[in-house]
Amino acid sequence: MATRQVTIDRTKSAERIERDIETLAGPNYTRSSEAIRRYAYTPEYRNSLDYFVGELETLGFEHYEDPVGTLVARNRPAGEKVFGVGSHCDSNRNGGKYDGTMGVATALEVCRLNSDLGLDLPLQLISFLEEEGSGFGQMLLGSRIVAQSVTEEELREKFRAIDDGRSFWEHAKEAGYEPEHWQDSIRILDDVFGWIELHIEQARVLQDTGNRIGIVGAIAGYVHADITVHGRSNHAGATPMNFRQDAGLVAAECMLELERLAKEAGKGTVGTVGEIELRPNLINALPGEARFSLDIRGVDEEGFRGVARDIAVFAQTAAEQRGMTAEYVQRQTLSATPLDERLVAALEAAAEASGEPYMAIHSGAAHDTMSIADRVPSAMIFVPCKDGISHSPEEDANPADAALASEIMLNAIRTLAAGGK
Amino acid sequence: MATRQVTIDRTKSAERIERDIETLAGPNYTRSSEAIRRYAYTPEYRNSLDYFVGELETLGFEHYEDPVGTLVARNRPAGEKVFGVGSHCDSNRNGGKYDGTMGVATALEVCRLNSDLGLDLPLQLISFLEEEGSGFGQMLLGSRIVAQSVTEEELREKFRAIDDGRSFWEHAKEAGYEPEHWQDSIRILDDVFGWIELHIEQARVLQDTGNRIGIVGAIAGYVHADITVHGRSNHAGATPMNFRQDAGLVAAECMLELERLAKEAGKGTVGTVGEIELRPNLINALPGEARFSLDIRGVDEEGFRGVARDIAVFAQTAAEQRGMTAEYVQRQTLSATPLDERLVAALEAAAEASGEPYMAIHSGAAHDTMSIADRVPSAMIFVPCKDGISHSPEEDANPADAALASEIMLNAIRTLAAGGK
Repeated sequence: MATRQVTIDRTKSAERIERDIETLAGPNYTRSSEAIRRYAYTPEYRNSLDYFVGELETLGFEHYEDPVGTLVARNRPAGEKVFGVGSHCDSNRNGGKYDGTMGVATALEVCRLNSDLGLDLPLQLISFLEEEGSGFGQMLLGSRIVAQSVTEEELREKFRAIDDGRSFWEHAKEAGYEPEHWQDSIRILDDVFGWIELHIEQARVLQDTGNRIGIVGAIAGYVHADITVHGRSNHAGATPMNFRQDAGLVAAECMLELERLAKEAGKGTVGTVGEIELRPNLINALPGEARFSLDIRGVDEEGFRGVARDIAVFAQTAAEQRGMTAEYVQRQTLSATPLDERLVAALEAAAEASGEPYMAIHSGAAHDTMSIADRVPSAMIFVPCKDGISHSPEEDANPADAALASEIMLNAIRTLAAGGK
Repeated sequence: MATRQVTIDRTKSAERIERDIETLAGPNYTRSSEAIRRYAYTPEYRNSLDYFVGELETLGFEHYEDPVGTLVARNRPAGEKVFGVGSHCDSNRNGGKYDGTMGVATALEVCRLNSDLGLDLPLQLISFLEEEGSGFGQMLLGSRIVAQSVTEEELREKFRAIDDGRSFWEHAKEAGYEPEHWQDSIRILDDVFGWIELHIEQARVLQDTGNRIGIVGAIAGYVHADITVHGRSNHAGATPMNFRQDAGLVAAECMLELERLAKEAGKGTVGTVGEIELRPNLINALPGEARFSLDIRGVDEEGFRGVARDIAVFAQTAAEQRGMTAEYVQRQTLSATPLDERLVAALEAAAEASGEPYMAIHSGAAHDTMSIADRVPSAMIFVPCKDGISHSPEEDANPADAALASEIMLNAIRTLAAGGK
């Protein structure tokens, strides 16, 4: 069923979104004067939730928090179907103003427009807890609790605050929550018949291709692993070239091979060595050991997993050829998340109708949407961020793009709500 | 003039050298129970000097210390020519029993044999201060003071204790020395007509080729430098392979090219990347910056300096090809030190006469001998250390090899003393 597109006052929406973001960049909302720094159970995080609650109350939304502090606000009573919008408003430890927060602000703008334009769409805004892991070192923590993909032991014991080493459980109780009811968190998805999250792209594809909007077709899965090469740390001056077992050189070969493998795999597969640690790491000593990290991602499951397998084999062979050994240890892995075709199509149609340049894209970064996409039909929409810089105070994005996205989201939700909840 | 070779009781000499070394590995001589750790102006270092003084006094040697604490002991009055033997007895912060100390113990053994065999050779033992830089972060410090290749400002202000940040000057005064007379230190070389230092090889060439003795023809010069590559730190998941400026990949290319260049240069030229530092060094972030160290050495001056020039150019080109920049900054450099042909020949003849396997070798590592070789005809003799391991508590060497070396040194000195002081 075709629904006539609504158009919005994009300038006004951009101003409102900018006001939200700039407010939340103020001193009451960040623990650092150099960067945005807010995470679960801090006063600055509390203030941020309260800001959104205040705005949503003026729109007549009811709000509650789940047993660990995920914020939920809806304009329909429990039991009625709603369409979900939102993101997270915690930040990286030295983060910027836009990662996550722009998604919640844009979701709020969708709620405002719904009210302004008298559309009466059934909406539920969610602001997930601890997406960045800045509080407890666990990425996507709030949405993983919602999805029940954590264990009680992890929440009670294993997940500990970066600041003071005390458990997540203890901090949650201290903040007034009831973590013992964490298994009820899943119920925030009970009546939700669709979910769209806006996020900054965190890369420069949109910027470099001149697009204002990316409609995300899938979120990449990933393998995080380490390879450690065991060589022999001898004196850098005294050891002739042909008497060496320099673990750093195997690491160098693997770094270049990973690049080659990722390019060869194609389909957006990427591979990165982000961390290297040589031992002893002295100018005048051969590296006797080299550990380096692997971050391998892709939306093509076989593609990125193949790269991980191939680099593990390559490392062993390269080490053996130099008389050394290498071991590959996986840290964690997550499958690729295809997004809902009907939602993606609705967003593409709305983007097309907006008259602005957009493109189909996939998400290389992980997002809360990954946690819930197998329970709720989900989609994501990206807006550009300057030079692809993210997780940094330098992060920059344009509220006008988010305003455009709010129009696209609103129209997509109208289509989907009309099409059958 | 041919001098008849003397033979010694090598077993007895090995026992004496072993006793010296094991004594100096005892609790009064090291600040760590896990490793040998001794450096200038500590009680443990003082005890070590006192041990040698005690042994030398029984041989009738007179001793004194130069204005900063370099130990000198001789069996001839001032003004008479003497042949110098010695090394250093300070250690790496987490060092072993043999580096330096075995050289002083073997020099002491030469003095003992001179007495036992009634040879009456004119000898001066020197134990240089602070070869390892463990106290003040300055390698070869004592011998550089002797050679006057430091400045008073460095001694008064710039060279500061690793432990407490106070100046070398202050520490020297506190220990009872007269650093204001440091320019008199050069006078310890006044009557010295030759110098031989024994040291462990700190590599595995002797071990792997089955030689017990290395006669050192030259000490490698070196360039210490850093290359920093400036790329762009984007999100490892979100940034497609062809949108990247990954500084780590340029570092990897340089590491492999340095190996190729050093091998191509030949003549014992070596090149090592011992330190790498990626920024931000996170598994999920592209390295936006990569700094790595260069240690390039050789006895062929043009050879190793050419490698340093070539890798600097390569780094720039490799960075540019990926849209990045790279800068090369030299930390310090020292020319190669050819050793005295006559001394080397005398050592080779004595080694040949010993009947044991020996080889001509060069020193890739720096030694105090470098500091004084342009003032005193100098040579060095190496003995194997197990698996080339040095600067580590795992360091191991055989006192029997040092005993053999003491026979060779003794015979070489006899030849040289007879040949013309």
